[in-house]
Amino acid sequence: MEKRNLTNIRLSGDENSVIILDQRLLPNKIEYIELSEAADMYAAIKELKVRGAPALGIFAGFALYVLSKKAPPPKLKEYADYLVSARPTAVNLEWAVSRMMKADDLKKECYAIRDEDAAMCAAIAERGLGLLKDGDGVLTHCNAGPLATSRYGTGLGALILGAEKGMNFNVFVGETRPLLQGARITALELMNAGLDVTLICDGMASAVMRDKKIDAVFVGADRVAANGDVANKIGTSGLAVLAKHYKIPFYVFCPSSTVDLSRKSGGDIVIEERDGSEICELYFKERMAPEGVKCFNPAFDITDGNLITAIVTEEGFFKKVRANEKRGNHV
Amino acid sequence: MEKRNLTNIRLSGDENSVIILDQRLLPNKIEYIELSEAADMYAAIKELKVRGAPALGIFAGFALYVLSKKAPPPKLKEYADYLVSARPTAVNLEWAVSRMMKADDLKKECYAIRDEDAAMCAAIAERGLGLLKDGDGVLTHCNAGPLATSRYGTGLGALILGAEKGMNFNVFVGETRPLLQGARITALELMNAGLDVTLICDGMASAVMRDKKIDAVFVGADRVAANGDVANKIGTSGLAVLAKHYKIPFYVFCPSSTVDLSRKSGGDIVIEERDGSEICELYFKERMAPEGVKCFNPAFDITDGNLITAIVTEEGFFKKVRANEKRGNHV
Repeated sequence: MEKRNLTNIRLSGDENSVIILDQRLLPNKIEYIELSEAADMYAAIKELKVRGAPALGIFAGFALYVLSKKAPPPKLKEYADYLVSARPTAVNLEWAVSRMMKADDLKKECYAIRDEDAAMCAAIAERGLGLLKDGDGVLTHCNAGPLATSRYGTGLGALILGAEKGMNFNVFVGETRPLLQGARITALELMNAGLDVTLICDGMASAVMRDKKIDAVFVGADRVAANGDVANKIGTSGLAVLAKHYKIPFYVFCPSSTVDLSRKSGGDIVIEERDGSEICELYFKERMAPEGVKCFNPAFDITDGNLITAIVTEEGFFKKVRANEKRGNHV
Repeated sequence: MEKRNLTNIRLSGDENSVIILDQRLLPNKIEYIELSEAADMYAAIKELKVRGAPALGIFAGFALYVLSKKAPPPKLKEYADYLVSARPTAVNLEWAVSRMMKADDLKKECYAIRDEDAAMCAAIAERGLGLLKDGDGVLTHCNAGPLATSRYGTGLGALILGAEKGMNFNVFVGETRPLLQGARITALELMNAGLDVTLICDGMASAVMRDKKIDAVFVGADRVAANGDVANKIGTSGLAVLAKHYKIPFYVFCPSSTVDLSRKSGGDIVIEERDGSEICELYFKERMAPEGVKCFNPAFDITDGNLITAIVTEEGFFKKVRANEKRGNHV
């Protein structure tokens, strides 16, 4: 398997399709798929073949550029709305689509979105690294690494950048049920970076924070409201409550474009609910719950801003709200 | 499928073997297995074919009675130690074995252990029901139902007893990774009882407590220390922290035999660590994490006594330690 920098999203040579790594198949298969039709692009977003808030923005940029080559503007607007409707919670998708729809040169714009993301991730990684010291224990959740972005990632950027500089961190990775992005993707990316990775089930986070040396929790974000409330992968808000209880700093990392000032608080953010089959059967050999059981399967949750030590963007700290930290001198 | 009261543990007609429901196969298969050799009994405990703290005690009683029919006392003592070594955390296993080894009439004693458990569970269920009102929202974790005990269960006893009396509760069941006892067993038992059951992934508990109507958390216990610290299924301590944060009462239900006064605090309880393959591959179609990833797989965690509203036994409340409840008039 390629050791690092799995290429996530790119244009085909003739620029008539977008080529993505099918993230649903990780870590068992590295398989690229080529998408040229709007319906397939929609499905790729909906089915999480491409995922990660910034990556969704990059994908949407490339997708709309490809579609623009054969669609007249009114049709392109239709496609744009269609792609945005695939997943409601991450702001980056609608943000990138809106940029593309306003742009004169769609080719230039889609590459700009990608390249800016790479620069933002690098800046976020640098800022994040300033919060850590060699040997720190870090807990993370879901995947906020290179495959969720362009390069480095947001929540994982500091860890990967630190590894490049010869540092090590003891990283505990929550598997992130139901879709196991932590187990399947984050563990892969961090091991490829050469870090000390320990996989846990999500319910083990409290025991890990209680009994192991965890110096910080690092996560990404799908949308940040004006008051600092954060929508991120389901399970994030629980980790923030635990981190507060155990007096561990809790950091959220995202590009500043993730901050959506049009949403006053988390209550104004639409939380995507996905099918219960993801919980009961998707990855399992056999169905793992009784037939007919009702499921609740929100893809994201809202972390109250007052549980968050700081929200770190490429521009600096968007918020520093939580006091009374074990290591309160960070921000 | 049989609607309720799946028989969990019994003796064969000739009393030369113990017959158990293989809980590893639920909910897809109802399959009974017959065990007459100590090695198979040990494996049944170790591999969780039989599980649940009180059920382990009942099983050990029947198992030692069967073994006593062909083993001289020194050999039986060896078998007893062997069975206890299969799982270190639940006190009930060593408690039942110790009772059996002191008993004059092993047949009478093993039935007494089972029958006393049924009576204790009924008493615990009655006490638990006094903490609820019709229509309450309850969150539970792992399985503390009839299959973990003899009848009714501990943590689920009140819910099942209430259902028998025509009440309903909105029960949110955490799937309980890695072994999915919530999804596979609790959901089945509560649906069979006619209750309104919603299955969630463990990481969704915070969102459920934050946004849904949860009036209480009900769990079982594997061992309770003298200071009220509780060892229970991994994930329990996180739920207790969340419940405190969201001001939801957190109740632990167990027979008084689960209280182990020889352990001053949770730090004196041995937490069983199980193989990482349970996280990465056991139930999955394919391995769901990179080859070679390190795993941390504690089967239990310690919930600090000060997070627990009350520990409810057949004799009454062992502890009532948590103040500042949303519904503080319970205890």
